[in-house]
Amino acid sequence: MVGSKQNISNSKDRAGKFFHCTDHERAAFEAGIKLGAIYHQFVGTPVSLGNVDVLEKAIEEGVRVQPFVIDVDVKINRENLFEKKHQYDYMSLTGNMLNVHLKVKYNHSIAVAKIEYIDELHYPLMFISSLENNITI
Amino acid sequence: MVGSKQNISNSKDRAGKFFHCTDHERAAFEAGIKLGAIYHQFVGTPVSLGNVDVLEKAIEEGVRVQPFVIDVDVKINRENLFEKKHQYDYMSLTGNMLNVHLKVKYNHSIAVAKIEYIDELHYPLMFISSLENNITI
Amino acid sequence: MVGSKQNISNSKDRAGKFFHCTDHERAAFEAGIKLGAIYHQFVGTPVSLGNVDVLEKAIEEGVRVQPFVIDVDVKINRENLFEKKHQYDYMSLTGNMLNVHLKVKYNHSIAVAKIEYIDELHYPLMFISSLENNITI
Amino acid sequence: MVGSKQNISNSKDRAGKFFHCTDHERAAFEAGIKLGAIYHQFVGTPVSLGNVDVLEKAIEEGVRVQPFVIDVDVKINRENLFEKKHQYDYMSLTGNMLNVHLKVKYNHSIAVAKIEYIDELHYPLMFISSLENNITI
Repeated sequence: MVGSKQNISNSKDRAGKFFHCTDHERAAFEAGIKLGAIYHQFVGTPVSLGNVDVLEKAIEEGVRVQPFVIDVDVKINRENLFEKKHQYDYMSLTGNMLNVHLKVKYNHSIAVAKIEYIDELHYPLMFISSLENNITI
Repeated sequence: MVGSKQNISNSKDRAGKFFHCTDHERAAFEAGIKLGAIYHQFVGTPVSLGNVDVLEKAIEEGVRVQPFVIDVDVKINRENLFEKKHQYDYMSLTGNMLNVHLKVKYNHSIAVAKIEYIDELHYPLMFISSLENNITI
Repeated sequence: MVGSKQNISNSKDRAGKFFHCTDHERAAFEAGIKLGAIYHQFVGTPVSLGNVDVLEKAIEEGVRVQPFVIDVDVKINRENLFEKKHQYDYMSLTGNMLNVHLKVKYNHSIAVAKIEYIDELHYPLMFISSLENNITI
Repeated sequence: MVGSKQNISNSKDRAGKFFHCTDHERAAFEAGIKLGAIYHQFVGTPVSLGNVDVLEKAIEEGVRVQPFVIDVDVKINRENLFEKKHQYDYMSLTGNMLNVHLKVKYNHSIAVAKIEYIDELHYPLMFISSLENNITI
């Protein structure tokens, strides 16, 4: 039963016995880990129009190898990026430039979580946009 | 009501309207973010017996400034650390050296989450050790 | 004159006036920055056989956008990498897995610098393998 | 002889034989590594007035354990830092906030290198402010 308060018994999850939470809570936790990882691994990376595409792809692929990720899309805001015209003409990736759409599945629980810069908060927010039971995926 | 599927209305949480999940799920998500952040921000930092204490403290204080953290304890395994005897005698922090005990509170939901190296998994596991409703804290 | 102790006057180097060193020393310094950056930006990144190629390419492209880089090659040791067979079957990039070959050019000074794991040091050494005057490149 | 083009033979430097450069060039290279490391290890770290002191100290101590460092001072610009008034009221460390003063010694060569935000470049510049022979330290 999804969302039950028992320990999760999941034949594919070798770590399941260490968790004391529901499938939904687990999916939320796993999503949080991945978003925290993206932000703190890659913020600071040098970026310009010349390497932004491969950087997006590398971030995505680095997320996909982690547990329970079924989909991820990373877009870096190009508004302040240019072709390099002189040696110091590039930026460091900031959290404010990140747009991430992540889907995590634990048993039947699907969490969709995002990183988006929220104007009214002046903050690159990590949030759960949906967390649902889906037996069809 | 804790755990209800409505949008969270929390007068102190300016970001609450962006979330579609229960308080427990939010607490789990916030805990995941912090553990992912610790790991991916600080793995790689140079460490020896000379700076391990201040590094632990800096990681803890960097977690405490983040949203909804009420307690955190970071211990770095000193087993392979030594006083420097020559110039190259120090290490880079790895995930396997991290022991973290984190407590996150969202409304009345308290998530306790950890990073511990698990021998049988050969892996520094991030997991939720408890997630409970506590109206007294 | 290359290697003179005057301030460097380089019409393309908008930062030149802040430096008090020769062209060779500048090339060595710039090479050091890039190797330190590679190591400390990317160590900790999740890696398996599935994403190692794109990660290598992203590291390279992130170096190329930085000042005075004319060539870089990054190889990640695949010895301990596998196709994922279960959820936790991947690694975090360590310095020991990095093989980097970097070429930096400042005026006519060319520094070739490397990161290589050195068995006898038990250490992923960053070093200058050559630093020469080359007016033909 | 300082600055000679032979391989450096330094009884304390177990890695010396891998280098092909002068002592001055080596000092410049070592300084570059440390500045690149500071930037790319710590940019992204959560920071507010509550943890800025310990973060500065941790960065300094993480530099001191690395080879050939004899002095380092790290100051984080507090202009945009405040006491936390709500949950999302903190920042991520950026390169623009960093002021670093580093002294590296290799044999008799002393490199002083800095990170400073340079207004006219709109850039947190890493540069060598002096590189000299000093037999008295």
